[in-house]
Amino acid sequence: MSKHTVPIAASDSECCSPLVREPLTTDWAGDLARMFKALGDPVRLRLLSLVASHESGEACVCDISGSFDLSQPTISHHLKVLREAGLLDCERRGTWVYYWVIPAALQQLSSVLAATDPTAADANVSGAALVSA
Amino acid sequence: MSKHTVPIAASDSECCSPLVREPLTTDWAGDLARMFKALGDPVRLRLLSLVASHESGEACVCDISGSFDLSQPTISHHLKVLREAGLLDCERRGTWVYYWVIPAALQQLSSVLAATDPTAADANVSGAALVSA
Repeated sequence: MSKHTVPIAASDSECCSPLVREPLTTDWAGDLARMFKALGDPVRLRLLSLVASHESGEACVCDISGSFDLSQPTISHHLKVLREAGLLDCERRGTWVYYWVIPAALQQLSSVLAATDPTAADANVSGAALVSA
Repeated sequence: MSKHTVPIAASDSECCSPLVREPLTTDWAGDLARMFKALGDPVRLRLLSLVASHESGEACVCDISGSFDLSQPTISHHLKVLREAGLLDCERRGTWVYYWVIPAALQQLSSVLAATDPTAADANVSGAALVSA
């Protein structure tokens, strides 16, 4: 089973920089949009959440299909979309394929959407510390 | 010009709880998916970033259209999608409509995608502090 990897940002700064701090590059916006598009469906969001919060952080379709009024092939299709977007990885074990989230991918999206710039916040904290020292 | 608001989570805990901690409810997944779907397009992501990082945190189409090889009506359409998703707000001033991001909406999405549970992290820090005290 092929492995999918998190899109690689051109630089660390590009990877973790909130979009409120500086304009996204065209390439980076394309990579991010592919991941957000995969999240733009309520079933896929719930699937991602069910897999991530499942005991031991991984789950097969057999574990989660009871939460949906959908066929197993439909659920498998949505899981494939999440996998191809680099948000999930998986491995076949016997009859079932087990899925788990890729924490680095989620964290990358979370950092990009942060409404405040953590670098600026750190700078403010440092400044305050200097003033009070 | 109508104002759009950030979707309201059923509870504070639902609003800020990372999806890795507990399964998303169906309603909340629907609200979030609408916002992620709006972000699932490279042009809209770049627009959001350009508006957010623009001087004073707001911009009109006249400020940002030079960054795209697209017509102003097309850009206005994408801005409308972002506004209807509750990610941007706007106000007409004379000839132009000015847009700005809604920080609470971005932060809500960022918190939902956080790969680690900040509550758990706090608990660990508290635990460590107790041990070292």
